[in-house]
Amino acid sequence: MKSSLCPKMEKTLEMISKRWTGLIIFQLLKGPQRFCEIENAIPISGRLLSERLKELEHEGIVSRKVFPEVPVRVEYSLTEKGKAFRPIMEEIQKWAEKYMEVDPQPVSKR
Amino acid sequence: MKSSLCPKMEKTLEMISKRWTGLIIFQLLKGPQRFCEIENAIPISGRLLSERLKELEHEGIVSRKVFPEVPVRVEYSLTEKGKAFRPIMEEIQKWAEKYMEVDPQPVSKR
Repeated sequence: MKSSLCPKMEKTLEMISKRWTGLIIFQLLKGPQRFCEIENAIPISGRLLSERLKELEHEGIVSRKVFPEVPVRVEYSLTEKGKAFRPIMEEIQKWAEKYMEVDPQPVSKR
Repeated sequence: MKSSLCPKMEKTLEMISKRWTGLIIFQLLKGPQRFCEIENAIPISGRLLSERLKELEHEGIVSRKVFPEVPVRVEYSLTEKGKAFRPIMEEIQKWAEKYMEVDPQPVSKR
């Protein structure tokens, strides 16, 4: 089944539609973070997060920096190509604010 | 695992990240279409397309119109909420054009 859609658009949608990929990019737009920081921010398993980060590294969207400290420190950050997702995420956020309904958050009792 | 992300953003990313959902919305931005037209444009099975269209109808993003003709004609189109995806898709298209590499299309021999 050949599709009449633009292959670049199709491949991009396919990439960002992978479970959690969008949220990981959205999270990293806040700046470089360590694995555990990303893992704490997103309801994702460590195994899957590691897999997604490798894919994003392979796509040139995320870069991984190792700091020669003891213990060693590893930081993930968006490349230029990754930061170029900002306008996409901003538009998604506008749509979400306007149209997406969510159950009211339980107010934590003091 | 609670996430510190905005629930509306998380739910929206989760919705549009479902396999083929983004491409279906992108396709319907071209205007109302019949099932077979969407099916021909996207490399998706009829069963899955039908499932995704039902989900999108449930989310209020797609509307389904039945024309009382013989044989009956059914058309799918984006609601206002669905059309509001246009700026998101335009930003994704810009990113795709600039950053996504695809294998060169085989030139059809004359």
